[in-house]
Amino acid sequence: MAKKRQRPKSKAKARTKHSHRRLKRTVAKSRPPVLQYTPWSSVPLEDLNPLLQRQMVWGQKIMLARVLLKKGCIVPEHSHPNEQLTYILEGALKFWIDGKEIVVNAGETLSIPSNMPHKAEALADTVDLDVFSPPRADWINQTDQYLRGRK
Amino acid sequence: MAKKRQRPKSKAKARTKHSHRRLKRTVAKSRPPVLQYTPWSSVPLEDLNPLLQRQMVWGQKIMLARVLLKKGCIVPEHSHPNEQLTYILEGALKFWIDGKEIVVNAGETLSIPSNMPHKAEALADTVDLDVFSPPRADWINQTDQYLRGRK
Repeated sequence: MAKKRQRPKSKAKARTKHSHRRLKRTVAKSRPPVLQYTPWSSVPLEDLNPLLQRQMVWGQKIMLARVLLKKGCIVPEHSHPNEQLTYILEGALKFWIDGKEIVVNAGETLSIPSNMPHKAEALADTVDLDVFSPPRADWINQTDQYLRGRK
Repeated sequence: MAKKRQRPKSKAKARTKHSHRRLKRTVAKSRPPVLQYTPWSSVPLEDLNPLLQRQMVWGQKIMLARVLLKKGCIVPEHSHPNEQLTYILEGALKFWIDGKEIVVNAGETLSIPSNMPHKAEALADTVDLDVFSPPRADWINQTDQYLRGRK
């Protein structure tokens, strides 16, 4: 995976240090429209906090994330312009969203429109698939401080 | 689910029969940006041919399909402008794509760019998650003849 994420050398050289830093903060790293075969076992499991781990694959329009939450993990309220579709494979997540509380169990999905604030808590050890469009720039660029270093 | 797919009456009335038919052929039915909680158990399982069944949920930018293929099922070569991300949950699919043969096993993903022709065969009974962006109009409108009535 690491190799696939490298920017072509010619383009990297053309950018100044400053413009490159600005780019990282605002948009996802560009990824050419190429076929990508990716076993999850080849994707590093990112530790965000003691109760939260994550893997991601993405193309130009779609990001698929495999999110592992231990029971009691809280994802604090946040929102993003990216549309989200959550599918729980194992366990259960309780969402606070749109003025409601919704428990999404294994075998259930939740489609979350752009910019709708939501908070979640893992009611059990959970395997969650999250689809985003466009890909989450803050996840790719690791500027997702709301998830890091907390339970 | 049936209720969610209905177009609001006021909009339906404003369209002529002709323009409505044309719309159905070219773009997905519009779906307002609302929160949708959908257990897979509430989504009808569509029989496409004796070896192929499908369920779908979708928002404005993302479609998630749960595709069940019996061993030996062939998905004939086709292409679509929608970007695709395939994740095999159970079983295995062999793809003919981009001049290569790639077997995608359980726990593996394949990101397929827009308009790249591909064919697939189920090497075992398979549970396949397919993500598309934008949602597949031909799947929603049931104009996907390449999948119907064949093994």
